[in-house]
Amino acid sequence: MSLDDVLAGIDAAQPRALNRLLSFLQIPSISTDPAYKQDCQAAADWLVRDLKSIGIEASVRPTPGHPMVVGHSDGPGPHLLFYGHYDVQPVDPIELWDSDPFDPRLEDTDQGPVIRGRGTSDDKGQLMTFVEACRAWKEAYGALPCKMTFLFEGEEESGSPSLVPFLNDHADELRADIALICDTGLFESTVPAITTMLRGMLTEELTIRGPSRDLHSGMYGGLAMNPIRVLSGIVAGLHDETGRITLEGFYDAVPELPDEMRAQWQNLAFDHGRFLGDVGLSVPAGEADRTPLEMIWSRPTCEVNGIWGGYTGAGFKTVLPSEAHAKISFRLVAGQDPEAIHAAFERHVHDLLPSDCTAEFTNWRGAPASQMNISHAAFEAARQALSDEWPKPASYVGCGGSIPIAGHFQTLLGMDSLLIGFGRDDDQIHSPNEKYNLESFHKGTRSWARILAAIAALP
Amino acid sequence: MSLDDVLAGIDAAQPRALNRLLSFLQIPSISTDPAYKQDCQAAADWLVRDLKSIGIEASVRPTPGHPMVVGHSDGPGPHLLFYGHYDVQPVDPIELWDSDPFDPRLEDTDQGPVIRGRGTSDDKGQLMTFVEACRAWKEAYGALPCKMTFLFEGEEESGSPSLVPFLNDHADELRADIALICDTGLFESTVPAITTMLRGMLTEELTIRGPSRDLHSGMYGGLAMNPIRVLSGIVAGLHDETGRITLEGFYDAVPELPDEMRAQWQNLAFDHGRFLGDVGLSVPAGEADRTPLEMIWSRPTCEVNGIWGGYTGAGFKTVLPSEAHAKISFRLVAGQDPEAIHAAFERHVHDLLPSDCTAEFTNWRGAPASQMNISHAAFEAARQALSDEWPKPASYVGCGGSIPIAGHFQTLLGMDSLLIGFGRDDDQIHSPNEKYNLESFHKGTRSWARILAAIAALP
Repeated sequence: MSLDDVLAGIDAAQPRALNRLLSFLQIPSISTDPAYKQDCQAAADWLVRDLKSIGIEASVRPTPGHPMVVGHSDGPGPHLLFYGHYDVQPVDPIELWDSDPFDPRLEDTDQGPVIRGRGTSDDKGQLMTFVEACRAWKEAYGALPCKMTFLFEGEEESGSPSLVPFLNDHADELRADIALICDTGLFESTVPAITTMLRGMLTEELTIRGPSRDLHSGMYGGLAMNPIRVLSGIVAGLHDETGRITLEGFYDAVPELPDEMRAQWQNLAFDHGRFLGDVGLSVPAGEADRTPLEMIWSRPTCEVNGIWGGYTGAGFKTVLPSEAHAKISFRLVAGQDPEAIHAAFERHVHDLLPSDCTAEFTNWRGAPASQMNISHAAFEAARQALSDEWPKPASYVGCGGSIPIAGHFQTLLGMDSLLIGFGRDDDQIHSPNEKYNLESFHKGTRSWARILAAIAALP
Repeated sequence: MSLDDVLAGIDAAQPRALNRLLSFLQIPSISTDPAYKQDCQAAADWLVRDLKSIGIEASVRPTPGHPMVVGHSDGPGPHLLFYGHYDVQPVDPIELWDSDPFDPRLEDTDQGPVIRGRGTSDDKGQLMTFVEACRAWKEAYGALPCKMTFLFEGEEESGSPSLVPFLNDHADELRADIALICDTGLFESTVPAITTMLRGMLTEELTIRGPSRDLHSGMYGGLAMNPIRVLSGIVAGLHDETGRITLEGFYDAVPELPDEMRAQWQNLAFDHGRFLGDVGLSVPAGEADRTPLEMIWSRPTCEVNGIWGGYTGAGFKTVLPSEAHAKISFRLVAGQDPEAIHAAFERHVHDLLPSDCTAEFTNWRGAPASQMNISHAAFEAARQALSDEWPKPASYVGCGGSIPIAGHFQTLLGMDSLLIGFGRDDDQIHSPNEKYNLESFHKGTRSWARILAAIAALP
């Protein structure tokens, strides 16, 4: 079997591969909003049909939330589990989109053609690079070079409530030698990268309640405690003036970066000026004594993702509201225990809570950080395969985002993950006008075809 | 002419007066929301028809915003200007109303019958106490005891943008010996009161902008400045730990309460425990060294009326938003210059603004506080008339709310105002389930009939 035939097949099939992706992107599978439940089901059904179209035995598996898709294909080499997610982020603020997020289209831009729409980069476009690589192998040789299991999730963007029970219930079916995950990006949009450090996450929704009803600020203002004032103090108090997070014990278990890793990251010559400049900023906002790459890869963070309370409509209403709300998330690094951080957050809130107010903590959810063991031969094989496809040699990197699945694969199924993806820094994932470069889609598919060949060839 | 005949007429006409009020309340004249523009016009038209029905020459006067209603009635005594407003507050959160806010109804409660609906107390019900008193005078004697001008505004709940130009353009038509305003309440729901100190108001809408677009907190969190974090620091920094407002120079021009006024207020035996207990609170939240009555009548305040930014829908979205917003209002006391306070607020914001963020100040609007000169004989005449109607003797009091019209009457038309109203502390104005006690409506109407007689009898 020659890899060249597979790569030539991928090149020839690009227009059809793009059409398949566009039809997948048209399904508004927003997992966090119950209004889109049927669309999540439709996206799962679409994937089953697509896997079956290349001869893979696949089925939709119900969960208490959105369903999983599982597929199997026998083969000669090592057993690999590929994971991707078919759900997407909400689209608001919808008015900032230049086109319908679910009417995806190919656009010509300065950086070449891009596919525009919700989910193009996170994660439908990335997921399909792997499926298309498998299709090319099947079309060239009627078989895949490795034994494959496929797992597609529909709740990645809404905290994956069904994931851990599903992995536990189907551990024997899903366990493989190593996992492949396509939900990350190229480093600085150009360097192919294998992500080996992933931050964990703790999400908190906080409600502060004061008066038993909304009050007129002219009658009660100055005398009645305003929950927005309380919430603002709690939020403002999460960071000190040097950018450090103030929760008690927050940094206790945070490891210092090993010197050799620090040196490797310095070699990457990360241009944080350009990275921030792309989004209209210039000054790193994290801990004053840390480098920008540390801030986004190896240091824990705390962000307020949403805040609301009182009158937010047009005009003015001099109301003193009875409650105020915030959604807050912490990115965690290896060593930090989400439950301990949640407890420290509760203490921080209670320390700043006046006796007249109450605090409610809704649906908090945590997943620890994870770190891959790169001694498995598949890591170096994949790094070489990526270096063959792209103009620059591939690197091991960290990742600011949280991909809890990689940690679950380690702890529940005992396997490490090769986190390889082709997104770019300007893909605007989770934002209006999300896109995925056609080059990412095309060379991503070719990359996976090469990686499958390289892993199949391991002794 | 005997006052008793007028009072007897009021008592006999109560059912018809109530029906008129109910039909007025059915018009959803929410001035702050452009969707209700036609309804504001309809409320103005309703008032013109109602004034004409008692022989008062009245007309709708267009403004760039919602129209004014002006009416005139000749008479023998001093010339009085009556002011009220026909617009109402928005109704959200609508789900907390027990009945349709614009389908008003009479309800039996522990405290006797109440009229339930938006605008019942603020200000349609109060406004109609005066109109019904005039109707009773007209029906009993075919004339009013004083020369009257009527002015009804439709933008009181949305900052009165058209008011000052209208007063300036029609100063000769509107100027009278003294103004009567019915937009205040009974002290502690039982003591008839003439409000002689009114706080002013400064409203600010603040937008903090950071990144040029919404970001993924996994990619940018920790490195990019989060505007919610900045806004929270600005809001939290408006008060110090003793409840004092921190704006530079904020208290410079604030007068200490005269000792005799302090003594009079002590005599009122204000039960702040009950006042706060009614809304589920117990601890005064204002300046630590001030009494509760000072906090709401004679001290300036700062409240956040609304805050919003980022993702506020169901579920979680780990977005790092590009902007965050707050609506903030200051209640001002005599001596404070709204423009100077606005400038101090801008400085406060800029002092806390990181170099990567910008601040926008939208539609700020200020009105100074005002204090009435109670040496005019009408004050004592009205106080006596109120004492004759109610079980308890009437008092001069302060008011936490802002009724800028009284200040404008002083500065633009050179006349003081008799601020007399019959609202109660639990009327829930600006809140769901607003109500007005039928007793307030009935005895309020009788009070105005008496006040007109007392002022007409002044030498």
